[in-house]
Amino acid sequence: MRQMEVDKVVCSSRLSRVAVCGGTHGNELSGVYLVRELLKKEKKGTEEGEEEGEKLVSVKIVLSNPWATQQCRRYVNTDLNRCFTHATLNGPMTDMAPYELIRSRELNAMLGPKGSPQAMDLVCDLHNTTANMGLCLIAYSDSDWICLHIFRHLQRQMPDIPMRYIHFDIAKEESYSLDSVGKHGFAMEIGPQPHGVVRSNIYTAMKFGVQHMLDWVRSFNSGTIFDGGFVEVFTMVKHIDYPRDSESHNIAAAIHPQLQDRDFCLLHPEDPMFQMFSGETVRYKGKEPLYPFFINECAYYEKSIALSLARKRHIAIPAIRVMTDEEQQHADQQELASEEEEEEEEEE
Amino acid sequence: MRQMEVDKVVCSSRLSRVAVCGGTHGNELSGVYLVRELLKKEKKGTEEGEEEGEKLVSVKIVLSNPWATQQCRRYVNTDLNRCFTHATLNGPMTDMAPYELIRSRELNAMLGPKGSPQAMDLVCDLHNTTANMGLCLIAYSDSDWICLHIFRHLQRQMPDIPMRYIHFDIAKEESYSLDSVGKHGFAMEIGPQPHGVVRSNIYTAMKFGVQHMLDWVRSFNSGTIFDGGFVEVFTMVKHIDYPRDSESHNIAAAIHPQLQDRDFCLLHPEDPMFQMFSGETVRYKGKEPLYPFFINECAYYEKSIALSLARKRHIAIPAIRVMTDEEQQHADQQELASEEEEEEEEEE
Repeated sequence: MRQMEVDKVVCSSRLSRVAVCGGTHGNELSGVYLVRELLKKEKKGTEEGEEEGEKLVSVKIVLSNPWATQQCRRYVNTDLNRCFTHATLNGPMTDMAPYELIRSRELNAMLGPKGSPQAMDLVCDLHNTTANMGLCLIAYSDSDWICLHIFRHLQRQMPDIPMRYIHFDIAKEESYSLDSVGKHGFAMEIGPQPHGVVRSNIYTAMKFGVQHMLDWVRSFNSGTIFDGGFVEVFTMVKHIDYPRDSESHNIAAAIHPQLQDRDFCLLHPEDPMFQMFSGETVRYKGKEPLYPFFINECAYYEKSIALSLARKRHIAIPAIRVMTDEEQQHADQQELASEEEEEEEEEE
Repeated sequence: MRQMEVDKVVCSSRLSRVAVCGGTHGNELSGVYLVRELLKKEKKGTEEGEEEGEKLVSVKIVLSNPWATQQCRRYVNTDLNRCFTHATLNGPMTDMAPYELIRSRELNAMLGPKGSPQAMDLVCDLHNTTANMGLCLIAYSDSDWICLHIFRHLQRQMPDIPMRYIHFDIAKEESYSLDSVGKHGFAMEIGPQPHGVVRSNIYTAMKFGVQHMLDWVRSFNSGTIFDGGFVEVFTMVKHIDYPRDSESHNIAAAIHPQLQDRDFCLLHPEDPMFQMFSGETVRYKGKEPLYPFFINECAYYEKSIALSLARKRHIAIPAIRVMTDEEQQHADQQELASEEEEEEEEEE
């Protein structure tokens, strides 16, 4: 996209209904305690008849996996945040289904259904990582201007927090995480914080992140035009597993001390990557320098991911404003027409 | 103890049998992977007929809680490292006993029995903490010269690692941890490392810690006289819980950012201690400045411990050497005589 396109103003539907979810992983405690705090405030607000914020946006606060949260575990039976693919949400269901499969359908009914006009306009799902990643928004699109504008707003409002936009290049139907249920959505991932621990600095960063996001949404809904510009995007390229013992399949190395905590610092071919428990260094054998992230994330040991690697690009985003009521009506009619056309094509 | 006493040479029994245990908590991974590595080396050594180290000391390597380790959890049913009191080890046993209760008796049979002449001469139990504690030896005695000399040796050999000796002032009978099964014993606690994660720097510190400990034992057994001197000891005074919600009993605050990671930095009355999730600061209300440690340890949320506080003292330790064979014989005879005397007194 050229400068000309950056100057262009696109308009986007009003974000009337936003969901803020925490405890999708029950041991990622910043989100758990932030959601509990927001629910407490909401209850107090309702009791006192405060509804000021609701004029500009309706916010739904959700503790996603209450059972896992109660046990302070990532999940009870299976990872809830992998249950939101089209296939899993619509597959057969038995009495013996894992708890998280049942819960994913409840959440899909509450916040979706995924892909439908009734779905939340925006879903922000709160996560923590043991990796030194600062604050990251993780999304499936590199052209969702809403998500990218929110990211840019957070960057400007919280200049002291290292912040990145991570793009998982996966088709909507294959997208698996809770945030994919919304029309727009992202995970807000903050670290480093051990799972099962809440660190005040990480909690506070998340609290401000959510506040600034909601401020942006209210400002957007009230008609503000946000300038276009450029955003740095990290697109995930591949995952790398730990070296493993050939017999036991246990890991045989830890992340190399020279790589540990260096998320988003360019990794070059032949840079140290692992240190074997017996002492030797294992080097990065890729041909292309790439950006490592999720380095030594606790929950990814069982997923065979020691770190992920990304390519960095600069993406131009256009200026944006909310649609007027007439524009919205027009857009709705066009969408209806194109849907009917599609149906006719299918029938042919 | 005065300088004169520091110059005194005490003699102590040979440390013929030493146990190095890891995975007492199944998600404290430095110990888990170090023990696996040592077991692998041991197996290789046995196959190749290497027995050089065994001449000076016999080392038993133990994975304490294999079931919890397999599940990467602290414990399966109950905290194994609280099961080694006299009462628990000798109490009634049912078919429905928690796994760790059964395992504690196996370990007591293997490394003890606790308090008996058959017990291991030294038990070193490997642990990790999410707190920024560096390397700590935790013991029940401030006058176990063996433990204190080993500590001083580690300090000298690893000057780059912050190192402290923590003293839990608990009677031998009430002592509850695995290391209490040995004639001498301590936990080697290293952090910060999230549970469920292994960090190369922490793993390496533990590996060197164990190596230097065994080097000291071999050197001691071979007749070296170790000079007396002074050691800084932190004696635990009390634990402090998190502020909690009066209704739900959930924690209502995190450790204050000004206290987080400041283990062993003197905490003064009125210093910030917690930051409420709603934002307010809670201050330390004690009257005495004390040294905080185990600040924000993950596993202590369920034990209602946000941090512990200690008093610091300097303890004089005498020079030490191993007993000669004659001295040992004489000591054994004396012990036997005093036991008989005690029995007679009990009978009277």
